[in-house]
Amino acid sequence: MDCVFCKIAKGVIPGFKVYEDEHTLVFMDIAKDVDGHMLAIPKKHVKNILDCDDETLHHLMTAVKKVSNHCVDACGYDGVNLLNASDESAGQSVPHFHIHIIPRKKGDGIDAWPAFNGAKHETEELFQKLRME
Amino acid sequence: MDCVFCKIAKGVIPGFKVYEDEHTLVFMDIAKDVDGHMLAIPKKHVKNILDCDDETLHHLMTAVKKVSNHCVDACGYDGVNLLNASDESAGQSVPHFHIHIIPRKKGDGIDAWPAFNGAKHETEELFQKLRME
Repeated sequence: MDCVFCKIAKGVIPGFKVYEDEHTLVFMDIAKDVDGHMLAIPKKHVKNILDCDDETLHHLMTAVKKVSNHCVDACGYDGVNLLNASDESAGQSVPHFHIHIIPRKKGDGIDAWPAFNGAKHETEELFQKLRME
Repeated sequence: MDCVFCKIAKGVIPGFKVYEDEHTLVFMDIAKDVDGHMLAIPKKHVKNILDCDDETLHHLMTAVKKVSNHCVDACGYDGVNLLNASDESAGQSVPHFHIHIIPRKKGDGIDAWPAFNGAKHETEELFQKLRME
Protein backbone atom coordinates (compact mmCIF):
# COMPACT_ATOMS: atom_id res chain seq x y z
CA MET A 1 0.00 0.00 0.00
CA ASP A 2 1.94 2.98 -1.26
CA CYS A 3 -0.96 5.41 -1.44
CA VAL A 4 -0.51 8.32 0.99
CA PHE A 5 -4.27 8.93 1.27
CA CYS A 6 -4.92 5.24 2.02
CA LYS A 7 -2.27 5.54 4.75
CA ILE A 8 -3.99 8.59 6.27
CA ALA A 9 -7.37 6.83 6.07
CA LYS A 10 -5.91 3.81 7.89
CA GLY A 11 -4.06 5.88 10.48
CA VAL A 12 -0.65 4.64 9.30
CA ILE A 13 0.38 8.27 8.94
CA PRO A 14 -1.31 11.08 10.86
CA GLY A 15 -3.80 13.58 9.52
CA PHE A 16 -6.01 16.34 10.90
CA LYS A 17 -9.30 14.43 10.60
CA VAL A 18 -12.21 16.85 10.40
CA TYR A 19 -14.89 14.24 9.69
CA GLU A 20 -14.93 10.48 9.44
CA ASP A 21 -17.53 7.81 8.86
CA GLU A 22 -17.48 4.21 7.64
CA HIS A 23 -16.91 5.16 4.01
CA THR A 24 -15.39 8.63 3.93
CA LEU A 25 -12.69 10.76 5.54
CA VAL A 26 -12.29 14.54 5.44
CA PHE A 27 -8.97 15.91 6.61
CA MET A 28 -6.96 19.11 6.40
CA ASP A 29 -4.79 19.69 3.35
CA ILE A 30 -1.40 20.72 4.72
CA ALA A 31 -0.28 22.72 1.67
CA LYS A 32 -1.20 26.03 3.40
CA ASP A 33 -2.25 27.50 0.05
CA VAL A 34 -5.59 28.78 1.37
CA ASP A 35 -7.18 28.89 4.83
CA GLY A 36 -9.38 25.95 5.76
CA HIS A 37 -8.43 23.77 2.79
CA MET A 38 -9.82 20.25 3.34
CA LEU A 39 -9.78 17.05 1.31
CA ALA A 40 -12.68 14.61 1.21
CA ILE A 41 -11.71 11.07 0.20
CA PRO A 42 -13.41 7.70 -0.02
CA LYS A 43 -11.71 5.17 2.26
CA LYS A 44 -11.89 2.70 -0.59
CA HIS A 45 -9.04 3.27 -3.03
CA VAL A 46 -10.35 4.56 -6.33
CA LYS A 47 -8.34 6.88 -8.53
CA ASN A 48 -10.92 9.52 -9.35
CA ILE A 49 -14.52 10.05 -10.47
CA LEU A 50 -13.88 8.10 -13.67
CA ASP A 51 -13.42 4.75 -11.90
CA CYS A 52 -15.52 5.42 -8.79
CA ASP A 53 -18.56 3.19 -8.28
CA ASP A 54 -21.83 5.03 -7.67
CA GLU A 55 -22.19 3.87 -4.07
CA THR A 56 -18.75 5.18 -3.09
CA LEU A 57 -19.41 8.42 -4.95
CA HIS A 58 -22.68 8.94 -3.11
CA HIS A 59 -21.13 8.29 0.30
CA LEU A 60 -18.37 10.77 -0.56
CA MET A 61 -20.76 13.50 -1.68
CA THR A 62 -23.02 13.03 1.33
CA ALA A 63 -19.97 13.65 3.53
CA VAL A 64 -18.90 16.66 1.43
CA LYS A 65 -22.36 18.11 1.96
CA LYS A 66 -22.26 17.43 5.71
CA VAL A 67 -18.91 19.14 6.12
CA SER A 68 -20.01 22.05 3.90
CA ASN A 69 -23.09 22.61 6.05
CA HIS A 70 -21.00 22.29 9.20
CA CYS A 71 -18.74 25.11 7.92
CA VAL A 72 -21.78 27.37 7.55
CA ASP A 73 -23.87 26.23 10.52
CA ALA A 74 -21.14 25.95 13.13
CA CYS A 75 -17.90 27.61 11.98
CA GLY A 76 -18.85 31.10 10.81
CA TYR A 77 -18.46 30.54 7.07
CA ASP A 78 -21.01 31.47 4.39
CA GLY A 79 -20.30 28.89 1.68
CA VAL A 80 -17.76 26.58 0.08
CA ASN A 81 -15.88 25.96 -3.11
CA LEU A 82 -15.49 22.38 -4.27
CA LEU A 83 -12.70 21.44 -6.64
CA ASN A 84 -11.66 18.14 -8.20
CA ALA A 85 -9.03 17.06 -10.68
CA SER A 86 -9.70 13.64 -12.18
CA ASP A 87 -6.63 12.38 -14.08
CA GLU A 88 -3.10 13.71 -14.32
CA SER A 89 -4.13 15.71 -17.40
CA ALA A 90 -6.44 17.68 -15.12
CA GLY A 91 -3.72 18.30 -12.52
CA GLN A 92 -4.44 15.33 -10.25
CA SER A 93 -1.29 14.84 -8.15
CA VAL A 94 -2.30 12.09 -5.69
CA PRO A 95 -3.93 9.14 -7.51
CA HIS A 96 -6.66 8.61 -4.88
CA PHE A 97 -10.01 10.33 -5.49
CA HIS A 98 -10.20 13.59 -3.50
CA ILE A 99 -12.51 16.57 -3.51
CA HIS A 100 -11.07 19.84 -2.24
CA ILE A 101 -13.38 21.78 0.09
CA ILE A 102 -12.55 25.46 0.61
CA PRO A 103 -14.74 27.19 3.20
CA ARG A 104 -15.66 30.73 2.20
CA LYS A 105 -16.77 33.85 3.97
CA LYS A 106 -18.10 37.02 2.41
CA GLY A 107 -15.23 39.43 1.82
CA ASP A 108 -12.49 36.86 2.51
CA GLY A 109 -10.52 38.03 -0.53
CA ILE A 110 -10.08 34.51 -1.92
CA ASP A 111 -10.43 33.99 -5.65
CA ALA A 112 -11.23 30.33 -6.17
CA TRP A 113 -11.94 30.54 -9.89
CA PRO A 114 -9.14 29.47 -12.25
CA ALA A 115 -7.67 32.00 -14.68
CA PHE A 116 -8.93 30.36 -17.87
CA ASN A 117 -7.46 31.78 -21.05
CA GLY A 118 -10.52 31.70 -23.27
CA ALA A 119 -12.01 29.06 -25.55
CA LYS A 120 -10.30 28.30 -28.85
CA HIS A 121 -13.31 26.67 -30.46
CA GLU A 122 -16.93 27.63 -30.94
CA THR A 123 -19.35 26.38 -28.27
CA GLU A 124 -21.57 24.66 -30.84
CA GLU A 125 -18.59 22.83 -32.37
CA LEU A 126 -17.64 21.51 -28.91
CA PHE A 127 -21.28 20.65 -28.24
CA GLN A 128 -21.37 18.46 -31.36
CA LYS A 129 -18.26 16.68 -30.10
CA LEU A 130 -19.48 16.19 -26.53
CA ARG A 131 -23.20 15.49 -26.84
CA MET A 132 -24.40 12.07 -25.70
CA GLU A 133 -27.03 10.45 -27.89
CA MET B 1 -39.95 31.28 -12.48
CA ASP B 2 -37.09 33.73 -12.88
CA CYS B 3 -34.27 31.19 -12.68
CA VAL B 4 -32.35 30.98 -15.95
CA PHE B 5 -31.21 27.41 -15.30
CA CYS B 6 -34.80 26.31 -14.54
CA LYS B 7 -35.77 27.89 -17.85
CA ILE B 8 -33.07 25.96 -19.72
CA ALA B 9 -34.09 22.74 -17.95
CA LYS B 10 -37.71 23.28 -18.99
CA GLY B 11 -36.86 24.30 -22.55
CA VAL B 12 -38.25 27.82 -22.11
CA ILE B 13 -34.91 29.13 -23.30
CA PRO B 14 -32.57 27.07 -25.47
CA GLY B 15 -29.40 25.36 -24.36
CA PHE B 16 -26.82 23.01 -25.88
CA LYS B 17 -27.96 19.90 -24.00
CA VAL B 18 -25.13 17.38 -23.76
CA TYR B 19 -26.89 14.94 -21.45
CA GLU B 20 -30.35 14.74 -19.94
CA ASP B 21 -32.24 12.31 -17.74
CA GLU B 22 -35.24 12.53 -15.46
CA HIS B 23 -33.39 14.38 -12.72
CA THR B 24 -30.37 16.05 -14.26
CA LEU B 25 -29.30 18.18 -17.21
CA VAL B 26 -25.80 18.82 -18.53
CA PHE B 27 -25.43 21.65 -21.03
CA MET B 28 -22.72 23.82 -22.51
CA ASP B 29 -21.64 26.93 -20.63
CA ILE B 30 -21.66 29.71 -23.21
CA ALA B 31 -19.07 31.93 -21.48
CA LYS B 32 -16.33 30.70 -23.88
CA ASP B 33 -13.77 30.94 -21.09
CA VAL B 34 -12.39 27.45 -21.70
CA ASP B 35 -13.04 24.80 -24.35
CA GLY B 36 -15.69 22.22 -23.53
CA HIS B 37 -17.02 23.96 -20.43
CA MET B 38 -20.23 22.23 -19.32
CA LEU B 39 -22.65 22.75 -16.44
CA ALA B 40 -24.41 19.90 -14.65
CA ILE B 41 -27.59 20.92 -12.84
CA PRO B 42 -30.42 19.18 -11.01
CA LYS B 43 -33.76 19.84 -12.71
CA LYS B 44 -35.20 20.49 -9.26
CA HIS B 45 -34.42 24.01 -8.12
CA VAL B 46 -32.00 23.97 -5.21
CA LYS B 47 -29.52 26.76 -4.64
CA ASN B 48 -26.33 24.77 -4.04
CA ILE B 49 -24.89 21.81 -2.14
CA LEU B 50 -25.88 23.38 1.18
CA ASP B 51 -29.63 22.98 0.60
CA CYS B 52 -29.56 20.01 -1.79
CA ASP B 53 -31.27 16.84 -0.58
CA ASP B 54 -29.17 13.67 -0.77
CA GLU B 55 -31.27 12.04 -3.50
CA THR B 56 -30.94 15.04 -5.83
CA LEU B 57 -27.21 15.26 -5.07
CA HIS B 58 -26.72 11.60 -5.92
CA HIS B 59 -28.61 11.87 -9.20
CA LEU B 60 -26.51 14.91 -10.09
CA MET B 61 -23.19 13.22 -9.30
CA THR B 62 -24.14 10.04 -11.16
CA ALA B 63 -24.74 12.22 -14.23
CA VAL B 64 -21.47 14.13 -13.70
CA LYS B 65 -19.67 10.80 -13.63
CA LYS B 66 -21.44 9.56 -16.79
CA VAL B 67 -20.53 12.69 -18.71
CA SER B 68 -16.95 12.60 -17.39
CA ASN B 69 -16.54 9.03 -18.58
CA HIS B 70 -18.12 9.91 -21.91
CA CYS B 71 -15.49 12.64 -22.39
CA VAL B 72 -12.74 10.06 -21.92
CA ASP B 73 -14.34 7.03 -23.56
CA ALA B 74 -15.85 8.70 -26.61
CA CYS B 75 -14.50 12.23 -27.11
CA GLY B 76 -10.72 11.96 -26.97
CA TYR B 77 -10.19 13.55 -23.56
CA ASP B 78 -8.08 12.13 -20.72
CA GLY B 79 -9.81 13.54 -17.66
CA VAL B 80 -11.94 16.31 -16.20
CA ASN B 81 -11.90 19.11 -13.69
CA LEU B 82 -14.98 19.62 -11.56
CA LEU B 83 -15.66 23.00 -9.95
CA ASN B 84 -18.46 24.27 -7.76
CA ALA B 85 -19.20 27.51 -5.97
CA SER B 86 -21.84 27.16 -3.27
CA ASP B 87 -22.99 30.60 -2.07
CA GLU B 88 -22.29 34.09 -3.36
CA SER B 89 -19.32 34.31 -0.97
CA ALA B 90 -17.75 31.48 -2.98
CA GLY B 91 -18.41 33.19 -6.31
CA GLN B 92 -21.74 31.54 -7.14
CA SER B 93 -23.37 33.76 -9.78
CA VAL B 94 -26.51 31.82 -10.74
CA PRO B 95 -28.45 30.70 -7.64
CA HIS B 96 -29.27 27.23 -9.01
CA PHE B 97 -26.88 24.40 -8.04
CA HIS B 98 -24.38 23.75 -10.84
CA ILE B 99 -21.18 21.78 -11.17
CA HIS B 100 -18.74 22.92 -13.83
CA ILE B 101 -17.22 20.10 -15.89
CA ILE B 102 -14.06 20.96 -17.84
CA PRO B 103 -12.84 18.13 -20.09
CA ARG B 104 -9.06 17.86 -20.08
CA LYS B 105 -6.46 16.42 -22.41
CA LYS B 106 -2.77 15.90 -21.71
CA GLY B 107 -0.86 18.96 -22.84
CA ASP B 108 -3.95 21.13 -23.41
CA GLY B 109 -2.27 24.08 -21.67
CA ILE B 110 -5.25 24.74 -19.37
CA ASP B 111 -4.55 25.63 -15.76
CA ALA B 112 -7.70 24.80 -13.82
CA TRP B 113 -6.28 25.39 -10.35
CA PRO B 114 -7.05 28.75 -8.73
CA ALA B 115 -4.21 31.12 -7.84
CA PHE B 116 -4.58 30.91 -4.07
CA ASN B 117 -2.56 33.49 -2.14
CA GLY B 118 -1.46 31.34 0.79
CA ALA B 119 -2.99 30.54 4.16
CA LYS B 120 -3.02 33.22 6.85
CA HIS B 121 -3.54 30.82 9.74
CA GLU B 122 -1.88 27.64 10.93
CA THR B 123 -3.43 24.40 9.68
CA GLU B 124 -3.88 23.06 13.22
CA GLU B 125 -5.67 26.25 14.31
CA LEU B 126 -8.11 25.89 11.39
CA PHE B 127 -8.48 22.20 12.15
CA GLN B 128 -9.59 23.00 15.71
CA LYS B 129 -12.18 25.39 14.26
CA LEU B 130 -13.49 23.01 11.60
CA ARG B 131 -13.41 19.58 13.23
CA MET B 132 -16.75 17.84 13.70
CA GLU B 133 -17.15 16.04 17.01
